[in-house]
Amino acid sequence: MSTPISTDICIVGAGPVGLFAVFEAGLLKLRCHVVDALPQPGGQLSEIYPKKPIYDIPGFPEVLAGDLVDNLMKQIEPFHPTFTLGERVEKFEKLDDGSFKLYTTDGTEIQCKAVAIAGGLGSFEPRKPAVENLERFEGGKGVHYMVRDPEHFRDKRIVIAGGGDSALDWTNFLANVAADVTLVHRGTTFRGAADSAEKVQKLHEAGKIKLVLSSNVTHLHGDDQLEQVTITANAGDSNTVALDHFIPLFGLTPKLGPIGEWGLDIEDDAVKVNTLDYSTSLPGVFAIGDINTYPGKLKLILCGFHEAALMCQGAFKYIFPDKKYTLKYTTVNGAPSL
Amino acid sequence: MSTPISTDICIVGAGPVGLFAVFEAGLLKLRCHVVDALPQPGGQLSEIYPKKPIYDIPGFPEVLAGDLVDNLMKQIEPFHPTFTLGERVEKFEKLDDGSFKLYTTDGTEIQCKAVAIAGGLGSFEPRKPAVENLERFEGGKGVHYMVRDPEHFRDKRIVIAGGGDSALDWTNFLANVAADVTLVHRGTTFRGAADSAEKVQKLHEAGKIKLVLSSNVTHLHGDDQLEQVTITANAGDSNTVALDHFIPLFGLTPKLGPIGEWGLDIEDDAVKVNTLDYSTSLPGVFAIGDINTYPGKLKLILCGFHEAALMCQGAFKYIFPDKKYTLKYTTVNGAPSL
Ligand SMILES: Cc1cc2nc3c(=O)[nH]c(=O)nc-3n(C[C@H](O)[C@H](O)[C@H](O)COP(=O)(O)OP(=O)(O)OC[C@H]3O[C@@H](n4cnc5c(N)ncnc54)[C@H](O)[C@@H]3O)c2cc1C
Ligand SMILES: Cc1cc2nc3c(=O)[nH]c(=O)nc-3n(C[C@H](O)[C@H](O)[C@H](O)COP(=O)(O)OP(=O)(O)OC[C@H]3O[C@@H](n4cnc5c(N)ncnc54)[C@H](O)[C@@H]3O)c2cc1C
Repeated sequence: MSTPISTDICIVGAGPVGLFAVFEAGLLKLRCHVVDALPQPGGQLSEIYPKKPIYDIPGFPEVLAGDLVDNLMKQIEPFHPTFTLGERVEKFEKLDDGSFKLYTTDGTEIQCKAVAIAGGLGSFEPRKPAVENLERFEGGKGVHYMVRDPEHFRDKRIVIAGGGDSALDWTNFLANVAADVTLVHRGTTFRGAADSAEKVQKLHEAGKIKLVLSSNVTHLHGDDQLEQVTITANAGDSNTVALDHFIPLFGLTPKLGPIGEWGLDIEDDAVKVNTLDYSTSLPGVFAIGDINTYPGKLKLILCGFHEAALMCQGAFKYIFPDKKYTLKYTTVNGAPSL
Repeated sequence: MSTPISTDICIVGAGPVGLFAVFEAGLLKLRCHVVDALPQPGGQLSEIYPKKPIYDIPGFPEVLAGDLVDNLMKQIEPFHPTFTLGERVEKFEKLDDGSFKLYTTDGTEIQCKAVAIAGGLGSFEPRKPAVENLERFEGGKGVHYMVRDPEHFRDKRIVIAGGGDSALDWTNFLANVAADVTLVHRGTTFRGAADSAEKVQKLHEAGKIKLVLSSNVTHLHGDDQLEQVTITANAGDSNTVALDHFIPLFGLTPKLGPIGEWGLDIEDDAVKVNTLDYSTSLPGVFAIGDINTYPGKLKLILCGFHEAALMCQGAFKYIFPDKKYTLKYTTVNGAPSL
């Protein structure tokens, strides 16, 4: 447990809308800390369709989702936001002075004056395969559903399971990092990009990785730490091997998750807001982007941008009830900074 | 008077918000016709600050106002919008079948199923200098407050008045088009760009144009058409010269103008709307961008983009009350077209 992080607005969710909220807050001289369950910023754009073109971002006849995220990261740089990535905001507490304390799954504590929930369709959670004892070795005991820091696996023996892009990409990458990499896939062909699959095949032929097809990891063994996995072929034979880490990569799906338990008005898995400033039923807490709902709501990125702008006005008033704010055009005010 | 133009949505105002509305309408397979009092699209961005950088367009760490307009024009190309530029929408009629007829200052008639007012701070109107008989020669009789089509002045004798960028730029441009160009300026130094002023000076020295400083055009003369102007020096002497066209260029200022007389609920020179779909008090008529007002309203370009998206949903429902619309992502649907 580290010392608490202190900021003006804690933004829950680093999707496009959460990121742009940093910009709008910065124009009002409010500092932001952004938390996301994923190891990288960008929300759905980074996790689901980074290489696909979007056509309805105003001013971009066409932009790749990943490039839009890069542009937004560059746009908010002058405001020096801080990030906690790979951790989910779990608990939520409103203090008597109107400020908030938020806690992540990993025990990170964030103190802030206002909360902006930009949680999209919810935090991205791993799809878990049916493996005996899987959950017993979660939380630092050998099972990892995403790779936050590849260095964690340096010179270790690892088993990766899955047949999509994540499984292929991390197998290829970790081949040069880990002592020993085994990729286990239930089928014989891969769903991921053809060139990644080809690279895996070549590493296998060169003896740099082990490739076990038509098989599943079925059991985990160990005392406190994970020590062995059993790999069972579709044909029935099984084989138990020693390892340090098991990385099942079967994709991530968004789940509303803890946000549903923070006492806010919820409707159809979304947070109800007032379009004046996208405030929720709890003063000081705002909700923007895909996570909110109101009459006429469209789950579009460009709508979230507008919501972020108006939300920051509301957060400013909540934090400084007595200060008066006058809108200044960025064009007139010059390059933004904090 | 030409044959009426017929379209789904008539967009009044070709500022950034009106332009983006063409895109959102196009996604719903609705055709648009756009009318603007200015001779070029872009509204305030083109008329007031084309060369200035904007910092708060999401996804653009910095973009010149003029470039944003170019990008928007490119983005809406697949939907083939049509334009009437240099004409103000003046009159407005709702028919019994719920459709509309709009008429411009020049008598252009537009028939449409819904109206989107994206009129910004109002239509840009010329600042008129104090010149005797000025208004008598408006409307095709020799006085022009903007240059819509330079060819109109080919081989004519023209007098331009003003000391800013427009006066300098058009003097330089028309020097190669008109038979004879005189620039009259009340001062001795120019407010416009230094290189434009220098170019005017060089043309004058080369005998290609006449430059009359410390002077004003004070009287216009003629029967039905403009025939002569009197130029009076600040010192008092005056001089009457023959000409075909007088072009006073003292800038444009936006005026709410006719929109205020269309029977809509107005508050502080803005049209009151319902944020569900930015509909006005008159069914079938919507208002988006700087021209509208609602609780929390910010006069920002990015807010107008969001309003345009929701407005098109409302227009679609107004035009097709029985059709059901389901949102499709552009990324999933592929490159937009009509
Ligand atoms: C295939 C596809 C194509 C699309 N195409 C388009 C398109 O063309 N145009 C368009 O406008 N939109 C499109 N969308 C929708 C668009 O991606 C969403 O509207 C947008 O991502 C919403 O942004 P957001 O910031 O609100 O949320 P998200 O992008 O969903 O980001 C929310 C983030 O919050 C995090 N989070 C949630 N809860 C917590 C928590 N408790 N703790 C920590 N982190 C948390 C999540 O992990 C996530 O990263 C598309 C979506 C998909 C899936
Ligand atoms: C110097 C300056 C700097 C700015 N900087 C920023 C910034 O950094 N960020 C930001 O978001 N915003 C900024 N703005 C504001 C921004 O320009 C406006 O929000 C934006 O232009 C609004 O767009 P619009 O399409 O609603 O209207 P406008 O751009 O005003 O366009 C409206 C158009 O409608 C036309 N029109 C009106 N009535 C009629 C009629 N009856 N018939 C025909 N045509 C009509 C007008 O001629 C005009 O061309 C700035 C403004 C100025 C002046």
